[in-house]
Amino acid sequence: MKRVFSKLAFPRYEKPAIRTEIPGPRSRELLKEMDMLQETRTINFFMDTAKSQGTYAVDADGNVILDVFGHIASLPLGYNHPALAEAASKPEWLPFLLQRHALGVQPPVEWPKELRETLMRVAPKGLSEVLTTCGCGSSANENAFKAAFIWKRARERHGSEPTTKELMSCMQNEAPGSPQKSILSFERSFHGRTMGCLSATRSKPIHKVDIPAFPWPVCPFPHLSYPLHEHERENREEEDRCLTRVEDLIRAHPIPVAGIIVEPILAEGGDHAATPYFYQQLRRIATSNGIAFIVDEVQTGCGGTGKFWAHEYWQLDTPPDMVTFAKKMQVSGFFLKSEFRPAQAYRIYNTWMGDPLRMLQLHVIANVIEKENLLTRVSDTGNFVKMELERISRETPFLVANVRGSGTFLAFDMPNAATRDQLLFEMRQKGVQMGGCGEVTIRLRPPLIFKQQDANILIETLELVLKNLKAHSSQKESLPIH
Amino acid sequence: MKRVFSKLAFPRYEKPAIRTEIPGPRSRELLKEMDMLQETRTINFFMDTAKSQGTYAVDADGNVILDVFGHIASLPLGYNHPALAEAASKPEWLPFLLQRHALGVQPPVEWPKELRETLMRVAPKGLSEVLTTCGCGSSANENAFKAAFIWKRARERHGSEPTTKELMSCMQNEAPGSPQKSILSFERSFHGRTMGCLSATRSKPIHKVDIPAFPWPVCPFPHLSYPLHEHERENREEEDRCLTRVEDLIRAHPIPVAGIIVEPILAEGGDHAATPYFYQQLRRIATSNGIAFIVDEVQTGCGGTGKFWAHEYWQLDTPPDMVTFAKKMQVSGFFLKSEFRPAQAYRIYNTWMGDPLRMLQLHVIANVIEKENLLTRVSDTGNFVKMELERISRETPFLVANVRGSGTFLAFDMPNAATRDQLLFEMRQKGVQMGGCGEVTIRLRPPLIFKQQDANILIETLELVLKNLKAHSSQKESLPIH
Repeated sequence: MKRVFSKLAFPRYEKPAIRTEIPGPRSRELLKEMDMLQETRTINFFMDTAKSQGTYAVDADGNVILDVFGHIASLPLGYNHPALAEAASKPEWLPFLLQRHALGVQPPVEWPKELRETLMRVAPKGLSEVLTTCGCGSSANENAFKAAFIWKRARERHGSEPTTKELMSCMQNEAPGSPQKSILSFERSFHGRTMGCLSATRSKPIHKVDIPAFPWPVCPFPHLSYPLHEHERENREEEDRCLTRVEDLIRAHPIPVAGIIVEPILAEGGDHAATPYFYQQLRRIATSNGIAFIVDEVQTGCGGTGKFWAHEYWQLDTPPDMVTFAKKMQVSGFFLKSEFRPAQAYRIYNTWMGDPLRMLQLHVIANVIEKENLLTRVSDTGNFVKMELERISRETPFLVANVRGSGTFLAFDMPNAATRDQLLFEMRQKGVQMGGCGEVTIRLRPPLIFKQQDANILIETLELVLKNLKAHSSQKESLPIH
Repeated sequence: MKRVFSKLAFPRYEKPAIRTEIPGPRSRELLKEMDMLQETRTINFFMDTAKSQGTYAVDADGNVILDVFGHIASLPLGYNHPALAEAASKPEWLPFLLQRHALGVQPPVEWPKELRETLMRVAPKGLSEVLTTCGCGSSANENAFKAAFIWKRARERHGSEPTTKELMSCMQNEAPGSPQKSILSFERSFHGRTMGCLSATRSKPIHKVDIPAFPWPVCPFPHLSYPLHEHERENREEEDRCLTRVEDLIRAHPIPVAGIIVEPILAEGGDHAATPYFYQQLRRIATSNGIAFIVDEVQTGCGGTGKFWAHEYWQLDTPPDMVTFAKKMQVSGFFLKSEFRPAQAYRIYNTWMGDPLRMLQLHVIANVIEKENLLTRVSDTGNFVKMELERISRETPFLVANVRGSGTFLAFDMPNAATRDQLLFEMRQKGVQMGGCGEVTIRLRPPLIFKQQDANILIETLELVLKNLKAHSSQKESLPIH
């Protein structure tokens, strides 16, 4: 086994190698097979994961594809990283592989140390506690919302326990026990798909329609003009307009606001960010109104922007109250200030409360990020890609516009959805997998190990495909999709 | 590695062995350490998982504890089962150990086969599709609710796509796009802790208070009298009373009902079940009102009741529309009829959509259940334990009452919460870990491999502890806990 696990000769790839269209015959066969059991229209291709390596995905038909999407931003070290393979060979991993612990009842003896050496080691400055939740960003945000509501009500009761009336009425889903409280979020934001999260998500109708939602307030998010340094004055005015609207909503919305949630970059909604000023002011507004300030770093966290947490760019005087995470982190959950820990036990709780095995994986990931100085690599490679995209944008402004982002967490807009989708398709046929977001946006989400040579291939392929790409006429779809 | 993984000589235990109080000094040290970072009052002890084996948990202080709670019913094959250890040594597991796939974008080639050979192999009769969700029962139920709402609205639109008005209004969380629709659930039921699930959960105030909830209808669940065969007439009357209330609520509740969710045994709420008649009638009411009938088998599923799915006991003419699962299944999700698959893609979707590694684990679990005939063992051992509990109840009716359940999914009531908690504590000191639920109930949730010798030790220890246990006077707590 040692042989197989730690000395397994994973293939190495230097560039894409395309044998068939993508999805190819074998992927299409698998799609047909799988479609008997569930929806498959969202699938690009099936992976031969054992053959994949580094930044290269190998698909079911043997195509070697440079992966600049990374499983929707959730692949930190690429495929089959040797450090992970070596760690997985250690007998220490076995107990976490063979059973899932109920971490709130009988956690493993290793758990406090893992929390400290893994999550707390990368904890955002000023947040002294952490909770892991069950395996997705939605569960992270749902629990952060709950922590905000519990904190807000405890403050309103001046720390007293819930009253009998509250305990009784909540069993009927009625006030005062089920309070009229809200989470304020922003237009175009995405915070997950469970019903609490979905009430804060404002990305696209297809995510929301037909699902009941809480009547929570939504605020415009700044529409900045690019490049930023040429539009400082109007961008500041736009940000102030949105901040005023936040304050108006807090004052006037019929459902009192308990928390504000915001992404550093509105990723599903089209990779929109505001300047640090905007977030600094949001933090100030939250503090002065006694509202929890929650930063959703599910997609931005774990290094893709060149900082471990994207909100480090804001240089806040007062840290966020909670920071949620998932995706590249492999585990999901949230960091919090200790005042957001509920006074009573069993309030933010569930059976598994995470997955220790995925925590061991994160431990290795954090080691590699540190040892290989991956944040610097992300910044350097990202700067190169961004400059190249800006050059391409200057050369073909009718196809590539609004280049934006930090690190390798980059995006640009295309003239319409059909052209964007066409670019994604053609790039994939040339062996480069990118992602779409918003209505007309291309997003790049490579693993942190994405290197100069990968960046060169990305840019060369992009230029080649753009040359042959005619801007499609806009095809309005009745249901805008993800 | 092969040596370590598949020939690792796990210790074997024949009976509990107690060295310290539980939690012992080492567990208490770890509690202190962990309490710096998060809530720890829910934790019973820390596990030395590598030393644990079969039905025996070894704790941080070297105590050997018979585990009749199984990580809140989520441990199907006990600790470090040799079949799992052997499977984990195979190189096939490695790609699933080193990265998490975005199953809706780039699933592994093995995925359709795993869906078919693992989940569909144990699929409830009549349900031809399955969706995996992200790692907990809450995400399973949230997505089943969404499928019910989407299905209901599609029916109301006679299959047409959502209107422009719906697509626009849902972005404001307003009707008609965010519709006034509800899920009907039952008093004392537990369906999870995210905000949609929590609106259906009616177990205890501590789970719900201070969290906003949808104004959904709640219906009384039958309070049956035990033993069932002595109270057939009044139990039928009680069930009819609740069924009438369900029909009244469907007719009159201001928020139209899109789905009914029910557990075969209301487990967190105190292990209450109704007779097959009740569930047959519920199914009939759902069908005749065009309402989705969702069975929550998160806790009851995967064999603990002696059937793979507890709802098999009901012998329904028409299967449930959806059946949700998690816990012992290691993966979470729901089975569904094909008519509940949304017509559009990206509606029930997220980044990971499950964890293929935990699916491989389930594959082995399903093999072992079949090969070792574990459902029969669960029935046989369960029958023995139940008869013994009934004997004890006859001998000490003031301490043990209302013995109930199927297979090893058994429960009994104690006179009050303090006595119940005292019994849990004293049993743990003697090396037997059980669980509590409801207000005054003891629940047994052993692994499926629980054997006659384990059952003997459970009963002997219980009789010993009961003998010394004085019924505590009821201590009303301001906040009833889990």
